[in-house]
Order: sequence, then structure tokens, then C-alpha cells
Amino acid sequence: MPASTSSAPGRPRTNLDATVFAAALRSVHNLGYAGATMDRIAAEAGVAKTTLYRRWPSKGALITDCLVDALGPAPLDGAGTDEIVASAIHWVAAKIGEPGVGGAFAGVFVDAVSDPALREVLSTRLQDPYRLALQDVLGEPEHRVLFVIDVIVGTLLHRMGMTGKPMADADVAELVEMIRRVLR
Amino acid sequence: MPASTSSAPGRPRTNLDATVFAAALRSVHNLGYAGATMDRIAAEAGVAKTTLYRRWPSKGALITDCLVDALGPAPLDGAGTDEIVASAIHWVAAKIGEPGVGGAFAGVFVDAVSDPALREVLSTRLQDPYRLALQDVLGEPEHRVLFVIDVIVGTLLHRMGMTGKPMADADVAELVEMIRRVLR
Repeated sequence: MPASTSSAPGRPRTNLDATVFAAALRSVHNLGYAGATMDRIAAEAGVAKTTLYRRWPSKGALITDCLVDALGPAPLDGAGTDEIVASAIHWVAAKIGEPGVGGAFAGVFVDAVSDPALREVLSTRLQDPYRLALQDVLGEPEHRVLFVIDVIVGTLLHRMGMTGKPMADADVAELVEMIRRVLR
Repeated sequence: MPASTSSAPGRPRTNLDATVFAAALRSVHNLGYAGATMDRIAAEAGVAKTTLYRRWPSKGALITDCLVDALGPAPLDGAGTDEIVASAIHWVAAKIGEPGVGGAFAGVFVDAVSDPALREVLSTRLQDPYRLALQDVLGEPEHRVLFVIDVIVGTLLHRMGMTGKPMADADVAELVEMIRRVLR
């Protein structure tokens, strides 16, 4: 179906996505992950809740797509492992510090603990593209890259949960150095 | 007020705590963190919701006390940094793998992202006792111990969110080795 005949109210589907994603991040930022219900996101976006459920089966799936959109492609084009690790970690640390992104990121992982279908969505839609790009550019096997992703993202999200703020630059530098040593 | 005149229905307060904590972990395990509402925890424990709110101002505060109880004291009595790091990481990895504990742990951090009062409770009641014990036994300053806690707990919780399972032994061993290098 071409976008121009989409059933979305008077706008092409990509604009609907952009409106809903922005509304989702604002809702998470203002109300927390638990408070950012599908009802609140729909109201914030100015669309009907049924519009959201036609496009996403659950809040977790919507938030996953929202994160894929907010993160975009990772910058992995440094010269050698040390540069690549530094640019990737600084990039994801900055993204997690954007309003709503850290809370959305952490919240969707928690929903996934008890939701196998959401884990599948998270794994294939959010994590796999970064995992495959890292395996390729670092020349490391899957299990090593999965470990490094757990450490980087887990550490940054835990700091956000404990302090409500992104990690300070000195600690991000320590994280970079730690991951470089793992990959040497 | 002495425990014997507590308003809890017919039992001393410590038994009420134990009943509520077990009900909270069962609810998180069966329904996920979001699904384990104060209503569901009260029903699972067989107490009135008002009984819970008399004791804890929020679900986050209840879950924090539940985690303090479930984790208990950390085993930090090895000979030297390498042994202490290994025993502490194996201990917290096993705890996070217990039914409901990983989900409760991750969930309360997410609630804390948007709740400064809960961050204060989490920091003082859950994290500080471990942080102070680690500073003492490792002879490391506060900011280094906070970094190490972020890495260990964040990594283990991220793995739980992505896979629904605790981290495998080989990866826990890699985490131990990585933290030992940070502290050398």
C-alpha cells in the first residue's frame, strides 16, 4: 500500500511514526516508563489509541521502534579497535543521556525480562544490527560482542537509574579503557 | 511502638514483611515488574492494600526493602582483591538468577530514573551498605567502587533483560577477570 493512501489521519506513515516517537520520549521523560502508558502516549501524540495498536502490538514494541529511530546507525568507522570502541561508547552514552531515551531503554529491558516475544523484538530489531556491525568491524565472535554490549549498555543504564543522570565523562573514559582491555 | 502492639493483623511485623516480600517476588516472577502492582502483591500476600501503604509509601520502596531482604549481606571475606571480587560477583549473579529477584532489581532501577525520592531510598537502603563494605575491604575510593557496582550489576541485569536468563558461568568468569583488571 503506498504511503499516500495510508489510513493514518491525513499524513504519511513516516510522519505518524515521528509524531508518536517524539510523544513516547516526552511521556517517558515526564512520567517515567511505567507512567508512559499507551493511553498517555496516544494523548500526547494527538492520535487514537487504536491507531497505536494497529501499528504496534504492545508498548514494548512501540518503544523498541522508538529507540531504533532515536539511536540511528552507530558510528563505527575509527582506525583500529581503540578508536572504534571510544567512538561507539561516547555515542551510546550521549544517546542514553537524551531526554526520555535512557528511561525508555531501561524500561523496555525490564518489560522484556517477563516477555519472550518482546525479547525477540528487542534482540532482532534493536540489538542485532549493532551486534553484527560490531562483529564485522572488530573481527570478534558473537559471544564476545554480546558480552561487550551487556557491559556498555548495562553500566550506562545502571548509572542512570542510581543517579538520574548520564555517566560523567571521567567514568565514560574509564569504561572505554576497560572495554579496550577486554578486546586486546 | 513495640512490635507486639503493631497494627498488623495478628502477627508480628517481621512475619508480615516475610509474607509480603515472598508475595512480591512471586508476583514479579509471574507477572513481570509492571504487572506486579500493589493490588496484586496485596492479593498474593493475603493482606489489604492499605496494610502495604501503611508500611511502604510506594511499590518502589516495598521492592527495595524486598531486595535488601533477598540479597542479605555480601560475602566479602576472601584473601585479597581477586578472591573478594570473584566471590562478590558470583554471589550477586546467583541472587539475580533467583525467581523474581532479577526482574525486581531491574524494575526498581527503571522506576528510579524518574523518581528522585526512590533513588534516595535505593541509594541509602540498598546500595550504600554494599558500597561501604566494598570500599573498606578493597581499600578503594567511593567513585571507583560506584563504577564497579554499575558495571557488575548493570551487566548482569542487561543480560537478564536480553535473554530472560541469568548470565552463563563462562561470561561471569569474564566479568570477574575484567573487574580484577580494573582494580589492579
